[in-house]
Amino acid sequence: MSHDTAKTAVTPPTHTAPPAKFSHGVRKGNILQVAGQVGFLPAVEGRAPTPAGPDLRSQVLQTLANVSSVLEAGGASWEDAVMVRVYLTDTGHFAEFNELYDEYFAALAGPPAARTTVYVGLPAGLLVEIDALAVLG
Amino acid sequence: MSHDTAKTAVTPPTHTAPPAKFSHGVRKGNILQVAGQVGFLPAVEGRAPTPAGPDLRSQVLQTLANVSSVLEAGGASWEDAVMVRVYLTDTGHFAEFNELYDEYFAALAGPPAARTTVYVGLPAGLLVEIDALAVLG
Amino acid sequence: MSHDTAKTAVTPPTHTAPPAKFSHGVRKGNILQVAGQVGFLPAVEGRAPTPAGPDLRSQVLQTLANVSSVLEAGGASWEDAVMVRVYLTDTGHFAEFNELYDEYFAALAGPPAARTTVYVGLPAGLLVEIDALAVLG
Repeated sequence: MSHDTAKTAVTPPTHTAPPAKFSHGVRKGNILQVAGQVGFLPAVEGRAPTPAGPDLRSQVLQTLANVSSVLEAGGASWEDAVMVRVYLTDTGHFAEFNELYDEYFAALAGPPAARTTVYVGLPAGLLVEIDALAVLG
Repeated sequence: MSHDTAKTAVTPPTHTAPPAKFSHGVRKGNILQVAGQVGFLPAVEGRAPTPAGPDLRSQVLQTLANVSSVLEAGGASWEDAVMVRVYLTDTGHFAEFNELYDEYFAALAGPPAARTTVYVGLPAGLLVEIDALAVLG
Repeated sequence: MSHDTAKTAVTPPTHTAPPAKFSHGVRKGNILQVAGQVGFLPAVEGRAPTPAGPDLRSQVLQTLANVSSVLEAGGASWEDAVMVRVYLTDTGHFAEFNELYDEYFAALAGPPAARTTVYVGLPAGLLVEIDALAVLG
């Protein structure tokens, strides 16, 4: 297997350990897949994973920062992202979420990624989960 | 960066503007990602996005047409689609949805795409959301 | 179109026929997409699709086995999987699901795939659905 096609785990130093055998990100060839990120604050040894918030704004911005950390640790940036999957828990959050999203991406140089937003259940205390697919090259 | 690997936004002329900084479709290299499409009728200037329906049939067929428009605007077709993600709001819609899906794809020449169907919440008035991943080549 | 980029349906012999025009898996180039798998036992002619269970453990392990069958039929393995999407129906299942997941992947040689887990509705009797994206090479 060539170096280009080896599968590599991507683990930003700020991230808490995943709660099971999965990686926060995986790169193989020119594909970088970011696992579902939530709004956990940077890991502190000995502290359980703790979400930002409790307001939507803090949690959304932390979640986007966590996705960004995985993209960067995988050698990519938002410019490489082709898809962003957004899982909200309340349709009433859509308008504010979009405002935060636009604010976060205000300086994006290239075309924004595609996006799908649906409303699901998440563990207590979490208002949003986001994953992303990037194509490098 | 070569032309092949530049990220390009895909925006069919019939589509209403996305409600935030995302693209209806993005192509990079041989990957074309279609954002989550709902059953909005073709955009009319000055009119808010309006879903087809209110019956499931109208909304499903409009949603599939909207996905198809993005595929075509990105230089692809359903023959290139490898994955279709279907978000319904009611498990009671599954049987009719499948009938509509089979009818819509009756003339498909190659193998159909893979598919995942789950049941989520969507904004009021929307019964279905669909996105797709295509690999060109 | 070269052999490398033809789209091929992947259909393990153990699998029940999909309920609509989609494939259990599709391979195109180096991309293998596995459709959403549930915990159906191996197909028996004349019997309706029947989930393992009713306990979570049986259904999760059968679902993972079904994903694995599609990966294998497509010329891949879990080592090639870059993303696993997990749809559970109950946040109360998360801890046990993770135990089962870790047990299932205990012998995995390479880095595990990325993963997103969300809580959705599924048809009656189904507790879990899983799909996967693999990059071969």
